[in-house]
Amino acid sequence: MSTTTENAELLENIKADVLYHFGLSTADFDFKRAFGDVKFVLCGGSAGRMLKVAEQVAKELKLNLPFGTQFKNLSKSDRYVLYKTGPVLCVNHGIGEGSCLIMLHEITKLLKHAQVESPLFFRLGTSGGIGVEPGTVVISTGGVNGLLSPYFETRRLGKSVRYDASLDEQLAEDLLAVCRQLKIKHTAGLTMGNNDFYEEQGRCDGALCSFTEAEREEFLHAAHKIGVRNFEMECCCFASFCKRAGIRAAVVCVTLLNRFEGDQLNQPKSVYQEYEMHPCQIVITLIKQILQVS
Amino acid sequence: MSTTTENAELLENIKADVLYHFGLSTADFDFKRAFGDVKFVLCGGSAGRMLKVAEQVAKELKLNLPFGTQFKNLSKSDRYVLYKTGPVLCVNHGIGEGSCLIMLHEITKLLKHAQVESPLFFRLGTSGGIGVEPGTVVISTGGVNGLLSPYFETRRLGKSVRYDASLDEQLAEDLLAVCRQLKIKHTAGLTMGNNDFYEEQGRCDGALCSFTEAEREEFLHAAHKIGVRNFEMECCCFASFCKRAGIRAAVVCVTLLNRFEGDQLNQPKSVYQEYEMHPCQIVITLIKQILQVS
Repeated sequence: MSTTTENAELLENIKADVLYHFGLSTADFDFKRAFGDVKFVLCGGSAGRMLKVAEQVAKELKLNLPFGTQFKNLSKSDRYVLYKTGPVLCVNHGIGEGSCLIMLHEITKLLKHAQVESPLFFRLGTSGGIGVEPGTVVISTGGVNGLLSPYFETRRLGKSVRYDASLDEQLAEDLLAVCRQLKIKHTAGLTMGNNDFYEEQGRCDGALCSFTEAEREEFLHAAHKIGVRNFEMECCCFASFCKRAGIRAAVVCVTLLNRFEGDQLNQPKSVYQEYEMHPCQIVITLIKQILQVS
Repeated sequence: MSTTTENAELLENIKADVLYHFGLSTADFDFKRAFGDVKFVLCGGSAGRMLKVAEQVAKELKLNLPFGTQFKNLSKSDRYVLYKTGPVLCVNHGIGEGSCLIMLHEITKLLKHAQVESPLFFRLGTSGGIGVEPGTVVISTGGVNGLLSPYFETRRLGKSVRYDASLDEQLAEDLLAVCRQLKIKHTAGLTMGNNDFYEEQGRCDGALCSFTEAEREEFLHAAHKIGVRNFEMECCCFASFCKRAGIRAAVVCVTLLNRFEGDQLNQPKSVYQEYEMHPCQIVITLIKQILQVS
């Protein structure tokens, strides 16, 4: 992983580095010993879902806990949860870019202090599909923002900047191969990642709405035309952060509905719970192939 | 509260409105009966802190729970927590604009379905101060974004838009009067609300940093010069949403450090835990004055 020279020096000169939003400090324990064997980081929005993912990883990698024990949440703050299952870290990032970026900065520093080399980062999420059947898993080729541009746009010291939001091509290819193998409904496509679930994503069912149904339709079709297959909230910041840090990364999201047909979810909860575990199944299968675990 | 005409019609025509991120649906129970007496919404980032706030509200309004019972989290999703204490809703909004906006849309719809008129919204938070002593409470006069402009900037259907991020003047005045009365260290000032805790706020202690220490200093001084007294992540979206919805709102944040002096927190946890409850103490005192509770 790379950091800018300046920043690498700064981090080395810090006496103790506090990962504030996880309540973890390098002064308190040996990060290399605790996290030195990590190879994969799996993240997603919901804390509850990431516990389920950690449990599934343990099961599939045959790393089951002793009878009667439970996964320990290693985060000492209520902002995020953090589970470790063998070489896999499972962490939630909350909702939206601001929350996701804090997790990325602090987990990347954690891995740097643990001297982990070349980890793979996966975001497993739920999303709204466009022009695809509900339950389809979208393997993202890259993110586009709310202006339909392939960048994460942000500000640095009062100036606007933008960063490339493309994702690792080979990792996406490998995930598509797994989807075919598992016979899970899937597609490759661009993912619109933006920071407002309601209006920026063209939803009219929030408390405020500043456009008409016809304008919404036009926007969704314009997005579909350039290759967008789903909408979520973190793809652009996740992809661009990982690219800047030299981390190979993928975004694997299941679509809960087809936005061409409506905005609200109206199937039984059990259907969505089943959908939600598909990205996890795909990524764990790839991890097993990489680790050559049968 | 106002919604656009189009949206009000749409919401009225919906058979059941699902507040997806709280797992609550108007089909399941009577919102007017459950929430019709709400007058105040208190929100903040951390779920754990909002439980403490709910407990403090109950204590101060003498609405103590029967012995041995605990506050019930009314949210049926793991994304947010929601507590009701008499006329006060306590809800967390997670970290950043994307997460905060979802809470605002869904809680505003909840209050609309409950036929609540003229609620007051308060954000109680922690922040990084600039040019003020740690522990100072900043009563925000309004938000400025990462470009130092008094707007929340976002996108609508592929176009950039911006909304006024000023806050209710009278409510800020009333809160300042309470601070003087309680003899809590305080100031009025602009709050920079932006969506990236590390680089956008000029921090160099994240995993990536794209500027020098000197450039950072210059930015912090430019912000201080126009009247910014603290940095957090939600002020602009919170202020602009409430203004658009016709909701009177205030932002009350305590500063944990002075950013002119550094970026990391290095005092004992107990100091921050004490600081964190100051905004709560101020807002509850104002609520008691409004309700004429002694």
